[in-house]
Amino acid sequence: MLVRTKRELIDKMITEAIIRQHSLFTNLDEQFGKICAFAKLVRLQKKNPVPLTSERKSRVYFLASGAARLVSVAAVGEDYVSDILVDGEPFGDFSLTGSMPEGYIIGLRPSTHVFYFFTDDFKKLLNQYHQLSLNYNLIICNRLRYFQIRHYVWTRKDARERLLFFFRAWAACTGTRINDKVVLENYFSIGDIGDFIGVSRQFLHIMLNELKQEGFLYYSRKQIWISDQILQSEQEIRKEAV
Amino acid sequence: MLVRTKRELIDKMITEAIIRQHSLFTNLDEQFGKICAFAKLVRLQKKNPVPLTSERKSRVYFLASGAARLVSVAAVGEDYVSDILVDGEPFGDFSLTGSMPEGYIIGLRPSTHVFYFFTDDFKKLLNQYHQLSLNYNLIICNRLRYFQIRHYVWTRKDARERLLFFFRAWAACTGTRINDKVVLENYFSIGDIGDFIGVSRQFLHIMLNELKQEGFLYYSRKQIWISDQILQSEQEIRKEAV
Repeated sequence: MLVRTKRELIDKMITEAIIRQHSLFTNLDEQFGKICAFAKLVRLQKKNPVPLTSERKSRVYFLASGAARLVSVAAVGEDYVSDILVDGEPFGDFSLTGSMPEGYIIGLRPSTHVFYFFTDDFKKLLNQYHQLSLNYNLIICNRLRYFQIRHYVWTRKDARERLLFFFRAWAACTGTRINDKVVLENYFSIGDIGDFIGVSRQFLHIMLNELKQEGFLYYSRKQIWISDQILQSEQEIRKEAV
Repeated sequence: MLVRTKRELIDKMITEAIIRQHSLFTNLDEQFGKICAFAKLVRLQKKNPVPLTSERKSRVYFLASGAARLVSVAAVGEDYVSDILVDGEPFGDFSLTGSMPEGYIIGLRPSTHVFYFFTDDFKKLLNQYHQLSLNYNLIICNRLRYFQIRHYVWTRKDARERLLFFFRAWAACTGTRINDKVVLENYFSIGDIGDFIGVSRQFLHIMLNELKQEGFLYYSRKQIWISDQILQSEQEIRKEAV
């Protein structure tokens, strides 16, 4: 058995406590410790972007807590928000194809943590633990459906629908229900959202005002209220997105 | 044991022969027969679109042979080609979320077959056979990466790049290499491709002529030649798509 320092043992306990609830570990009581030994925890801070790749080894990441934005580097000076993560999403080399994307990730809330495995380790773990492979399957299946619907909305719908798609995805995994509304704590800037849906801040302001006047949505720096009418219309889109 | 008619036994043998090589069944020699018993084979014909959903049960499909186009029904009279399938791709409720998309599928080559499982059956099989869950994982991981790159190209690149994305994906899984070119047998119409990348036939013609003049591509009703220069530039896009 490895001799560990006190610091290493404390780190291990912290990692386990923070990632334990992630759906990747559902029904893995006994094996959790063994799998967890391969996981590395990273705390994200607002002013300290963490690159997705280093050491020339691809990594598969999961959001453990908080919220984060994923930034893509298309070319020098051409960074853009490629996704917004709020609910345990996988990212990085989550397709396990050995991809090493040149992006980085930034925390949006005070207590935002991600954890990762090196792809090679993770593949071995999937081979070893059937339940882990089922859990991972479920996670990427959900991600797949999200991508499928997003592509449909991005290619067949207008900017307003892209904005609603963003709010719906967000409300689906967090927020407090009050009567016929869902209230979200707002930790995104206008710039984050505009970048994600591909519109300018000015145009985003106009759309938010329209939605407010129609009684569908109220947006402020701290809070967002979304009405049920908007959340319900998602069912139709889900049917259309093949 | 079930008493089977001769017809049923022959059908079973045909199904097994056609789907055996699909990557879903890699390393599943002994269990293949048991899993295959739940699979249903469908032969696609050009003039007979097959709806993705019926009997109110969701289905997960795989392309077994040939090529097909997946058509989405956004609204009455608003059908469009949402994807083009050439290489064993999963479709339908492949996210296993119980979705019942209102689309249909059309064969593009004489011998095009798909097979499907009901989602509930398929989930049970994944639970039962670890190797099957690993194989399925690999299939949807590849699909996920394809969706990720497609979204990147669709949102950050122009129509010409979308067209090249289509040719690259196609050349990656089929075609014959001759010197510095890949030659593809063409079974798509200008309408299919234009629909998929979201441009008119007229504009697609202009782009194809440009690519021809630049020496990158030659397109005719029967054959397409694609130069290596175009295929190689995919590496960059893969790095950018986070």
